Amino acid sequence: MARWEPNARERLGRAALDLFVERGYEATTVAEIADRAGLTKSTFFRYYADKRDVLSAGQDVLMEAFGDAIRKAPAETTTVGCIALALDAAAAAFTPDRHDIAPKRRAVVAANSELQERELLKSALLTSTMAEALLERGVEKMTAQLAAELAILAFGITYARWSEPENQQPYADIARVVLGELQERAAALGADTFDSV
Amino acid sequence: MARWEPNARERLGRAALDLFVERGYEATTVAEIADRAGLTKSTFFRYYADKRDVLSAGQDVLMEAFGDAIRKAPAETTTVGCIALALDAAAAAFTPDRHDIAPKRRAVVAANSELQERELLKSALLTSTMAEALLERGVEKMTAQLAAELAILAFGITYARWSEPENQQPYADIARVVLGELQERAAALGADTFDSV
Repeated sequence: MARWEPNARERLGRAALDLFVERGYEATTVAEIADRAGLTKSTFFRYYADKRDVLSAGQDVLMEAFGDAIRKAPAETTTVGCIALALDAAAAAFTPDRHDIAPKRRAVVAANSELQERELLKSALLTSTMAEALLERGVEKMTAQLAAELAILAFGITYARWSEPENQQPYADIARVVLGELQERAAALGADTFDSV
Repeated sequence: MARWEPNARERLGRAALDLFVERGYEATTVAEIADRAGLTKSTFFRYYADKRDVLSAGQDVLMEAFGDAIRKAPAETTTVGCIALALDAAAAAFTPDRHDIAPKRRAVVAANSELQERELLKSALLTSTMAEALLERGVEKMTAQLAAELAILAFGITYARWSEPENQQPYADIARVVLGELQERAAALGADTFDSV
């Protein structure tokens, strides 16, 4: 049996990200990642399917967390309340010790068009996961679709503010503020007139 | 000099779509598309870069039309008014004689995961094109982002209703109704409370 390695998943993830930044995503091999983390290739493959998986695994976790939070919300929770709970669930992944990961991750993705496409597709999947979870609660279809778009915007804006170098606020606090700001915009767009056009 | 071929672009597009439906997207060649349209391969390449371009060319036209409509809207136009004008511009592409194309196109894309990814990416590009055009008008950033998401939703829902076999309404009329419906949802989401969560 394999030796138990404390925190192997996190160590591999950080080693991979550092190497992607230093050498580029394409040029980095799984062997190098394992080596940098002080682990073996076979340990790597216990946690990740391939090097791309290191970057997308977190999004899969998020997707499940978002969907679960919405499905398990009390029956009386409003639609925006469900989004707030989904963002609270995401906060578990955005702890202060992971703060330094965000700018590295952004730099790696920005340098590779295939990874950018992956991000967009994952974001579309996150959106439809939330829309479906809202539909399952009986939220009307167009409301569910628009709410899911609002949620994914809130998620992205919150992440950007949370990962700013000077930020000290916890993710969940920022998320509530952003959600409120987006609600203001939604109300204003709802009140816009355009018949005179 | 090449002989002038009436309506070659449209003929090639329709021939390609019919072949994609009959034989599958992967199995269809450019030579077969040209042959079905009664044209030559070199004529095909005057209009399209490759067979994938037949499916995405329309989206490029839309992207330009959306961006232009928003940029050229009178200064006093509201944000939702700009979206209405963008959808009006899209209506030029959705004339009654093109009604039969929608279900074929949908079937081809649904059968191919690479094409589905392309669609999602194009949709993300359409959204950011609209958000940027709104920003250029001086619309505040979060409003521009949310409005662009609302616009792309309105576009998709309008297209789905317009392409239903029994539909007789023009695209632009449906678009105005959908936009109003989405505004109602936006207003309701803006008014949701969630502090008690």
